[in-house]
Amino acid sequence: MSSEFALIDRYFKQPAAQQLAAAGKSVLGIGDDCALLDVPPGMRLAVSKDMLIEQRHFFSDVDPRSLGHKTLAVNLSDLAAMGAKPLGCLLGLGLPRVDDAWLSAFSKGFLDLALATGCPLVGGDTVKTPHDITLSVTVLGCVPQAQPALLRHAAQVSDDIWVSGVLGAADLAYRIRAGLMGIDHTAIDQAAIDQAAIDQTTLDQLNKALDWPTPRLQLGQALLGLAHAAVDISDGLLQDLNHILKASDVGAILYEPLLPVASALLQFSTAVRQRAALSGGDTYELCFTAPLSERARLITIAQHMNIQLTRVGQVVQTPGIAIFDQNNRLIKPVASGFDHFSE
Amino acid sequence: MSSEFALIDRYFKQPAAQQLAAAGKSVLGIGDDCALLDVPPGMRLAVSKDMLIEQRHFFSDVDPRSLGHKTLAVNLSDLAAMGAKPLGCLLGLGLPRVDDAWLSAFSKGFLDLALATGCPLVGGDTVKTPHDITLSVTVLGCVPQAQPALLRHAAQVSDDIWVSGVLGAADLAYRIRAGLMGIDHTAIDQAAIDQAAIDQTTLDQLNKALDWPTPRLQLGQALLGLAHAAVDISDGLLQDLNHILKASDVGAILYEPLLPVASALLQFSTAVRQRAALSGGDTYELCFTAPLSERARLITIAQHMNIQLTRVGQVVQTPGIAIFDQNNRLIKPVASGFDHFSE
Repeated sequence: MSSEFALIDRYFKQPAAQQLAAAGKSVLGIGDDCALLDVPPGMRLAVSKDMLIEQRHFFSDVDPRSLGHKTLAVNLSDLAAMGAKPLGCLLGLGLPRVDDAWLSAFSKGFLDLALATGCPLVGGDTVKTPHDITLSVTVLGCVPQAQPALLRHAAQVSDDIWVSGVLGAADLAYRIRAGLMGIDHTAIDQAAIDQAAIDQTTLDQLNKALDWPTPRLQLGQALLGLAHAAVDISDGLLQDLNHILKASDVGAILYEPLLPVASALLQFSTAVRQRAALSGGDTYELCFTAPLSERARLITIAQHMNIQLTRVGQVVQTPGIAIFDQNNRLIKPVASGFDHFSE
Repeated sequence: MSSEFALIDRYFKQPAAQQLAAAGKSVLGIGDDCALLDVPPGMRLAVSKDMLIEQRHFFSDVDPRSLGHKTLAVNLSDLAAMGAKPLGCLLGLGLPRVDDAWLSAFSKGFLDLALATGCPLVGGDTVKTPHDITLSVTVLGCVPQAQPALLRHAAQVSDDIWVSGVLGAADLAYRIRAGLMGIDHTAIDQAAIDQAAIDQTTLDQLNKALDWPTPRLQLGQALLGLAHAAVDISDGLLQDLNHILKASDVGAILYEPLLPVASALLQFSTAVRQRAALSGGDTYELCFTAPLSERARLITIAQHMNIQLTRVGQVVQTPGIAIFDQNNRLIKPVASGFDHFSE
């Protein structure tokens, strides 16, 4: 057996086959030209794919176990934003070199989350890349045919705008790490960190938000039939909410003081805090719109699932996003989001 | 609208939406967190993904329109090898820079084949890469639940081994091109090309095989219920046939003189010809096994579809592949296939 196939077998195929067998799912997994899956009767297929590139989406020295987790998590987050239940996933793994320790940790992070979320690895490919680690995941899920999925174009005027969890921690962690590594012009400098007197415990919390995001799969499924439109916050609240607003041909009012900001951000200046909460990416919380009549049921869901759900604004007819501060004055955000190609 | 989204809209989203609308398929395409597709009743989902990396799978100066075609074709070839009918595809596009002319041609090559094969582009993502063009495609198809798909582990002793089309042309084109560019130790040198007195018409034919492969989708679907095991020849006949043999716990006898060698190869030496036919990759023809009782029906299919189908050997109990020459002497092939990680 040649090295490539031995490698895939050892770290992915064998553990994935064990997970499949244990789950009792009737699918054909890794090892043929295609994987075969049954979409349950009455369900519609939901599918999404996201690439992660070294230096672009993660630092080269990132803990490979957290990278394995995050690679799958950011894709599962797209299923969550649709209200879809996971069926399985495929992994394209591009590596400049074979490193046993790295692969062992990466596959563990990936497969642990696959097991925990009922999303078995059923296929993919491994290639050698000239320079950068390249990760490409496809996730497959299903939504009921009889019920509308959570679509971006379904927001309605006077809907509440809700956000799950807290915002800004992952973005702040990224900026601190980038600053310490001196590679990014949006980095926070050492003076700001010193001024905020940020301790190791807080730093660990921030890093956890960046490295170990939780896809809101259960919440997404629970929102079916309650929420109108939903999106996961990967590029920042303003930019991702804007996808909903444009697709639905509406606008929004946001109340900045209502934003659920991560507690570690309170130590920083207003500018840093606002920027992280409004424009910070990598959160993978859900932003969704729902009619006022569903407030009580949403609060019950939040309590039941032990997930913070916060109303942060309202859908309005006027296009664009108007943000108000605690004195009801219109404020202008520092930045609107992240675009890979605009530099 | 930021540049990334404008770019995707212009070259992919708008044409893809037009194709979808024209096809009258009830799917949700590009522009939400997931694409939504209905798998027809009584059908099972087949899914595959393949990555193509610049310098690794294609030359940097390749014609972008043929690259767009090939990127989808090699993925559709996996559906063909399963007997699956295409449902849709997703494209992950990693680019170091935005080049309008390149994108226009690439998207045309990709979307023309998507339209021709009934495989609409329904999703994907675009990212900026630090160095290399990185292409990642996921294809979705379906096979009947009531009928066995063409699985690698289904070959049976005494099955005929069949190959579609002709072999070796793409491999030879690759080696000539690599030789002219001086980047590969397996290149054919100028002396061999001069000796074979290869003319421009022949060279064009070879290049067409390399750059514009035809996925054998209709053939694959026609083989359901006739063939036992199938694989597409991406890494070379010996290596890909070996996947079937290992999975089925059997062996094979191949008759080298029976191999359907591309006519341009006849100008080259026996060694070059043998190597290209037995071990040459990038062919995307199908290799399949079928019981002797299906010979007549397979010949009818070949005539009906105007596809060359050739019996090249037999499945046997003894593991491994034994290859015989025209004097019935056992021969040893030059190389057994291509493995990205074994160097």
